[in-house]
Amino acid sequence: MLFGEKELLHRRVQVSPPQILALSFLIAIVVGTFLLKLPIATTIPISWIDALFTATSATTVTGLAVVDTGTVFTVFGQVVIMVLIQIGGLGLMSFAVLVVIVLGKKIGLRERILVQEAFNQTSIGGVIRLVKTVFMFSFFIEFIAVILLSMRWVPEYGWGFGIYTSIFHSISAFNNAGFSLFSDNLMGYVGDPVVNLIITLLFITGGIGFTVLADLWHTKEFRHLSLHTKLMLVGTLIINVVAMIFIFLLEYTNPVTLGALDLGDKLWASYFQAVTTRTAGFNSLDIGSLTPGTIVFMLLLMFIGAGSASTGSGIKLTTFIVILMAVLTYLRGRTETVVFNRTLKVQLIFRSLAIAVISLFVVFIAIFALTITEDAPFLMIVFEAFSAFGTVGLSMGLTWDLTSLGKEIIVVLMFIGRVGPLTLAFSLARTKKSTIRYPEGEVFTG
Amino acid sequence: MLFGEKELLHRRVQVSPPQILALSFLIAIVVGTFLLKLPIATTIPISWIDALFTATSATTVTGLAVVDTGTVFTVFGQVVIMVLIQIGGLGLMSFAVLVVIVLGKKIGLRERILVQEAFNQTSIGGVIRLVKTVFMFSFFIEFIAVILLSMRWVPEYGWGFGIYTSIFHSISAFNNAGFSLFSDNLMGYVGDPVVNLIITLLFITGGIGFTVLADLWHTKEFRHLSLHTKLMLVGTLIINVVAMIFIFLLEYTNPVTLGALDLGDKLWASYFQAVTTRTAGFNSLDIGSLTPGTIVFMLLLMFIGAGSASTGSGIKLTTFIVILMAVLTYLRGRTETVVFNRTLKVQLIFRSLAIAVISLFVVFIAIFALTITEDAPFLMIVFEAFSAFGTVGLSMGLTWDLTSLGKEIIVVLMFIGRVGPLTLAFSLARTKKSTIRYPEGEVFTG
Ligand SMILES: [K+]
Ligand SMILES: [K+]
Repeated sequence: MLFGEKELLHRRVQVSPPQILALSFLIAIVVGTFLLKLPIATTIPISWIDALFTATSATTVTGLAVVDTGTVFTVFGQVVIMVLIQIGGLGLMSFAVLVVIVLGKKIGLRERILVQEAFNQTSIGGVIRLVKTVFMFSFFIEFIAVILLSMRWVPEYGWGFGIYTSIFHSISAFNNAGFSLFSDNLMGYVGDPVVNLIITLLFITGGIGFTVLADLWHTKEFRHLSLHTKLMLVGTLIINVVAMIFIFLLEYTNPVTLGALDLGDKLWASYFQAVTTRTAGFNSLDIGSLTPGTIVFMLLLMFIGAGSASTGSGIKLTTFIVILMAVLTYLRGRTETVVFNRTLKVQLIFRSLAIAVISLFVVFIAIFALTITEDAPFLMIVFEAFSAFGTVGLSMGLTWDLTSLGKEIIVVLMFIGRVGPLTLAFSLARTKKSTIRYPEGEVFTG
Repeated sequence: MLFGEKELLHRRVQVSPPQILALSFLIAIVVGTFLLKLPIATTIPISWIDALFTATSATTVTGLAVVDTGTVFTVFGQVVIMVLIQIGGLGLMSFAVLVVIVLGKKIGLRERILVQEAFNQTSIGGVIRLVKTVFMFSFFIEFIAVILLSMRWVPEYGWGFGIYTSIFHSISAFNNAGFSLFSDNLMGYVGDPVVNLIITLLFITGGIGFTVLADLWHTKEFRHLSLHTKLMLVGTLIINVVAMIFIFLLEYTNPVTLGALDLGDKLWASYFQAVTTRTAGFNSLDIGSLTPGTIVFMLLLMFIGAGSASTGSGIKLTTFIVILMAVLTYLRGRTETVVFNRTLKVQLIFRSLAIAVISLFVVFIAIFALTITEDAPFLMIVFEAFSAFGTVGLSMGLTWDLTSLGKEIIVVLMFIGRVGPLTLAFSLARTKKSTIRYPEGEVFTG
């Protein structure tokens, strides 16, 4: 062993972890673009911007597609996409876990012990072992899913394509990518219990965050779980139930979505669309046919996103919960935000608010730019921007009609959406003190 | 003198100042609704909801109109509207100044001395004198404006209507109400220097905030001004110049707005629309004809709004500046936000972020509700919601077509938009400690 963990991390911190992360993603995207532009990658030639768009969409696990993945890309092209998704999903997740450890020196003893117990990373060997654990766990889950999906798809498509499409959808689902080989995504399986359950369980597992999974693995009782895990479990349950009820009610009479289905399929479709919207991005209903109310509600879901240190994006469910709890606290005239008998630090609330506001500002600038470059209904533009930032991948149909400039804006937005929130959380968690001290000034607000 | 100031304020605080404020506004709106529903108030009968809408729009100095103010309302009705505007504008401004004094006991010595020197309110007599100062100053400004506007409008409309319309527009402008007796608002004066200058100077003065005006009155040198005043002056200048450039460029070739005008009128129109959008709500261009880019940019302006303790609304310019400075600080990896050699307290930044997030959440819920009740393009709905919340009063044309439910939503939104941010700022500035202490919990965000 050449370096102790501390030394290694110290050297990394000098380049700044977010910079390493952004650079790795950039390299993956550039390499991916070249590979997808190769003649063997596509059945018809595609433009550089479409190759860049697809590579970015795959690496950032977004799933927005400017061309039909199933027909325009060859098996070689599709494998490239699969690998990019795997790199983008697992890469960010393991990176986030490392960042949590680095920051762990500043966070509570409880979580530090948890992370150390879970991964035993006390040296460079420990770090490698940790990343290995993340990868092994992910591959194991994906492997099980391939078997289960094959049981559904081999009878339908035969051995070759049956297993192949199971592998593709398993990787795409666990990494919350939302890419599908079917040109209508999963609309053909709107009422299929097997596909609905396996796909959603995959992306919920991938999207809840590795620290949550590790905590669940090591802790037997709910009250012994960390605050973060409790919030994620209860929060995921509540938001999914609420989303399902909203979508069910808002679409119930819509003849082009739920209206045409029987009650069982209505429930499956509401469930699927409720859980997929926060970041997975698969769809079993036609997004462009949803009512404006559902679409606007989905904007919120897409913005909230998945869990920290997961394969999903968005500002993160915990960020949203912290803001919500803090707001309720202040509206009741209290100052201490208490959840599960734990006080949320002002710094934590502050960090959450900052992440939300900065993220909204980024999305706003993108929407502003898109209204200038694109000639499309405003709702389609807004939906596309939130979908790209949350690396969701749902679209009302604008993606295919984007101008080159519009594609470039979405590419940048997907990139920021994937690495931005983690970068922000990292920066905001550091507490570098300024050397010059100024007196405090007061400003009236509100 | 029966009560000392302390005793009086103490008794008020028990009902909570925001509650008094909300209640006064409610009473004004209810009385206004009944008066506007009287047969003598209108030339044709109007519905209760239209009377409520108009009373709310006037009291909250919004300016959104469901009927044409100049033709549907009689002089009696228009006088009611004028009085409601005056109550709503001056009422909130003086109330805000009082709140600043109450909170002043917790804010810096510098501002406290400033407020005390300016108003010398050391007793109940002082408080009354302070409110008197606010009122006298406002009436004086409005009086001067009436004389100046009359010089323009008496030659055009004769003595009667010329002076009357000057009074109406002077009150409407100083209080940032945006109501006009002309059915095309101020579009008939798009290139008129007198109307452009006087109207904009009126609402800029009313909208910059009374503490700023008092500080300017008492302080001779820029560097001796309070931090709040410096931010407001520099901020107002920058945002107006930036807004003017954006609107000028975005509309330059639009044949139905700037495109048809000569360069002089183009500049006047860009200037007017740039400064009016943050809360005043007059318009010299047809809002429904603007390009989507301009409309989206205006959403930001409407959300930002005017100054604290002013006749305007929105989250307030200082709130926006504080957020912007803090974000820039964190993106550069610093932790101390320094402006004009003063450090902004974390509590202040935190309060600003909270106001922004809660306000956005309110607007979002309204947009969600409006997409369900209204059958209109999404951009029109979003614009209407931001306009109502910022009590701006600009509309792309949706106001007249709103359903009854839609009108009710906008009524609530105007009310929250007017009293909400001040209420929030007040609540967030209080620091009531919880009696039960819980251990701190850590949550991962971003
Ligand atoms: K996705
Ligand atoms: K207004």
